[in-house]
Amino acid sequence: MFESASLSHRIEKAAYKREEPKLRQALLNAQYDLKQNGKFTTLILIAGVEGAGKGEMVNLLNEWMDPRHIEVHGFSEPSDEEKERPRVWRYWRALPPKGKIGVFFGAWHTQPIVNRVMGLSSEGQFDQEISEILRLERMLVDEGVLLLKFWFHLSRPQQKKRLHELEKDPVTSWRVTKNDWILFKNYDGFAKVCEPFVRKTSTAEAPWLVVSGADARYRSLTVGRTLLAAMRERLDDKVVPQLPDRTPPLLPAIDKLNVLRALQLDQDLSKNAYTKQLEELQGRLNRLFRDPRMKQMSVVGVFEGNDAAGKGGAIRRITGALDARAYQTISVAAPTEEERAQPYLWRFWRHIPRRGRFAIFDRSWYGRVLVERVEGFCQEADWMRAYSEINDFEQQLAQHNVLVVKFWLATSKEEQYRRFKAREKVAFKRFKITAEDWRNRKKWDQYETAVCDMVDRTSTNVALWTLVEANNKYYARLKVLRTMADAVEAALARIDKPKKSRTKKDRVKNGRK
Amino acid sequence: MFESASLSHRIEKAAYKREEPKLRQALLNAQYDLKQNGKFTTLILIAGVEGAGKGEMVNLLNEWMDPRHIEVHGFSEPSDEEKERPRVWRYWRALPPKGKIGVFFGAWHTQPIVNRVMGLSSEGQFDQEISEILRLERMLVDEGVLLLKFWFHLSRPQQKKRLHELEKDPVTSWRVTKNDWILFKNYDGFAKVCEPFVRKTSTAEAPWLVVSGADARYRSLTVGRTLLAAMRERLDDKVVPQLPDRTPPLLPAIDKLNVLRALQLDQDLSKNAYTKQLEELQGRLNRLFRDPRMKQMSVVGVFEGNDAAGKGGAIRRITGALDARAYQTISVAAPTEEERAQPYLWRFWRHIPRRGRFAIFDRSWYGRVLVERVEGFCQEADWMRAYSEINDFEQQLAQHNVLVVKFWLATSKEEQYRRFKAREKVAFKRFKITAEDWRNRKKWDQYETAVCDMVDRTSTNVALWTLVEANNKYYARLKVLRTMADAVEAALARIDKPKKSRTKKDRVKNGRK
Repeated sequence: MFESASLSHRIEKAAYKREEPKLRQALLNAQYDLKQNGKFTTLILIAGVEGAGKGEMVNLLNEWMDPRHIEVHGFSEPSDEEKERPRVWRYWRALPPKGKIGVFFGAWHTQPIVNRVMGLSSEGQFDQEISEILRLERMLVDEGVLLLKFWFHLSRPQQKKRLHELEKDPVTSWRVTKNDWILFKNYDGFAKVCEPFVRKTSTAEAPWLVVSGADARYRSLTVGRTLLAAMRERLDDKVVPQLPDRTPPLLPAIDKLNVLRALQLDQDLSKNAYTKQLEELQGRLNRLFRDPRMKQMSVVGVFEGNDAAGKGGAIRRITGALDARAYQTISVAAPTEEERAQPYLWRFWRHIPRRGRFAIFDRSWYGRVLVERVEGFCQEADWMRAYSEINDFEQQLAQHNVLVVKFWLATSKEEQYRRFKAREKVAFKRFKITAEDWRNRKKWDQYETAVCDMVDRTSTNVALWTLVEANNKYYARLKVLRTMADAVEAALARIDKPKKSRTKKDRVKNGRK
Repeated sequence: MFESASLSHRIEKAAYKREEPKLRQALLNAQYDLKQNGKFTTLILIAGVEGAGKGEMVNLLNEWMDPRHIEVHGFSEPSDEEKERPRVWRYWRALPPKGKIGVFFGAWHTQPIVNRVMGLSSEGQFDQEISEILRLERMLVDEGVLLLKFWFHLSRPQQKKRLHELEKDPVTSWRVTKNDWILFKNYDGFAKVCEPFVRKTSTAEAPWLVVSGADARYRSLTVGRTLLAAMRERLDDKVVPQLPDRTPPLLPAIDKLNVLRALQLDQDLSKNAYTKQLEELQGRLNRLFRDPRMKQMSVVGVFEGNDAAGKGGAIRRITGALDARAYQTISVAAPTEEERAQPYLWRFWRHIPRRGRFAIFDRSWYGRVLVERVEGFCQEADWMRAYSEINDFEQQLAQHNVLVVKFWLATSKEEQYRRFKAREKVAFKRFKITAEDWRNRKKWDQYETAVCDMVDRTSTNVALWTLVEANNKYYARLKVLRTMADAVEAALARIDKPKKSRTKKDRVKNGRK
């Protein structure tokens, strides 16, 4: 993998001086065109060997381009804020919007490699992390991100020479730490891990571009010209032949039966019985959320359902049981301009709660496979890949002790009609019913199909869907409360049993010995 | 994942009788259109729970359609022939060509699930197998295969009922074996493995289509209609919006240095010295191939190089040292019609040698990233993904104790000119030099770039490239022989150390205790 980059590439000073101003100008132009075009994000990853000029390259890119439209992020040890979220959260957080260029230094590649070299992870874990990276990068590319991955390489003798040179020069000697020499001694250990890593994470859409780091002028021109060519190709909208439709249709409806129609939507429950049970359940939920083990997990509640199915009422019965500092309700409507400039899941990642906290999503990431699918706001290929992206997302949450509880509140078409009409009659409820609600209702069957596909494809061991019979709003609210309390109770119980994957160190950090 | 399929779907006999003839006719039409169109393969995978009617469905598909254009393959225990090749070899072997429909029953999904349920593989291995499956299926889809994966499901009570029913009826009681009941007792164990398996191997391009298996008429119509819709969609060439170019450019040439130009092509070696060393090396190679450990491995030699670089001569010096029964030389030219109707790697998979044997490829799968890239025979996206597909392919070979040794024979442009001219002068060598050779020569620089990219992207720990300085053909031949002998010797030495992954049972099978 590193054959070319191990050669002694060199650019003479004079040649560099001729080339650099032209390259800079062209890069600036590309940067402005990107800003104007606003159609994609350029994301540059800088990785590779110590002493190969990664830091200098990042500085140079900043110097070459307009710093207002370039965002540089160096990732080292995660902050407390970041540790309380799944590993990829901090990369989502730093992702620049469309029209901008991001430079990630030490991104999601660093930790898996270091852990493997240090023997902190097994071959199997390493392979799993590689799969996660492949899925993340594929998702970014599918979302239109121009992902350029530069791997800065030095051969063993090149690295030795470079460290000596830096050390000798009083101006740069601070750059070489004792740690660098320790790392150098383990050059072969790193090489043994990096080779398969670079091989396995090189795909057609996001190949590693291995750059020889020995000569500063050579590596600068290499990165600069590659960046320019890649941006120009995309900006100038190079025509590619049409690809065949690769998404096969999902199962057709063969009979009248589906998971929604199988529900007994009308349930008996009197207001009196409701009031009594409501208090009991709210008390139970309140106690659960005050459990000290709650500090080691977080909860995400997802509320989806027909229009006027009573999502808001159910949510208020939950929040009514909780300390206002413990939860946050996120109402998901059409994406804002800021959100549209990001990959689809970005606007949900940003609301993933810290430890001990509860995020309630009133509508959620499932909009992709519901309203966006039915209304044609995205293409078939996009909502089809959303199922596995969502499953991935929820698995990452689950792995990080984030409990995900999902509800679909289902009413009959007749009950919905009754509620719409009732809302129209009451002045202070009229804002709740719009022309859009009536329009959606016309697509009842299409929504029904989309909901059934959603349940089939995303109700998983890591995050089950609970279908709630909601013609009787009292029954629905109690089912939601009970399901939530049961799920939290079960999750708290799991915390007592330390998982195999959790290391001793982690447990100590979490405050338990 | 199995919510809809667990419902009691049922189709009445009368409705089925009305529907079936129409569906059959439409499927037959689609089958003939596919044959005429000849643009893709339809591959149907049938998997899922025992007793859910998988076998009946396969029979029915055969009955419904024209059996001349449908190929059914049931996979159970691998044959001796198959055991001597990497796991996926038998699926490649069975892959139907474009224009045909293939039905795979118990394909690459079965073993990973069974092994995991039985505790024969770890969570990590299971995840690795899932990654392999994802890569294989993505490659098939990228190659234009319409892949339809049906998962036949029964809930626990449904499966119990079904087994009882089959058992009671004297006509079908033979279908239920003791083993079926043993499997049934482990229903929950299977479910625990199948759920994440189905979830993780469901992608936008190849989602699992989960079919309720309880009612024969329902499952037949479901599969039939889905198959019809998927084929029609592709046959009728549904227009999809143009996707952006997702393959960034590889590194540009910044200076004159590359892995080929770094070679010292002229090497000193007299004919006398050559003759003496040749015999020694051939003797050594002969002894190595007669080593009893050779029965546990196989060897693949890959010869690529400039036109007239002496590949044939080098190959003959190797085969001259071997028993004619031990090796096979495969000359790779433009693909035949049969080969063009298959995914790119198919024509190489078919030549993967059995244990103890040596396959020599005179040109190889690298044509994709050399001639096909330079001449524009395939699109950029295709040759870009070929790098990782080839690395995958070679890793699968390496994991199965197939040693892969790859040579690039390099001459200078001047030396090539000399040889072309010399060949034209000698009557019996004239066939060796064609107008195409002269045409290729004009694209020398483009080929040089392609070769350097190839070496950088596919010289890996599992299969290294050896660059051979070939202006002096004597020197080149000896370097090839020596490299080959060294590689075989090292591989034989590795056989003495049993790998962790090899089980005791395997070792006994291989004749060692």
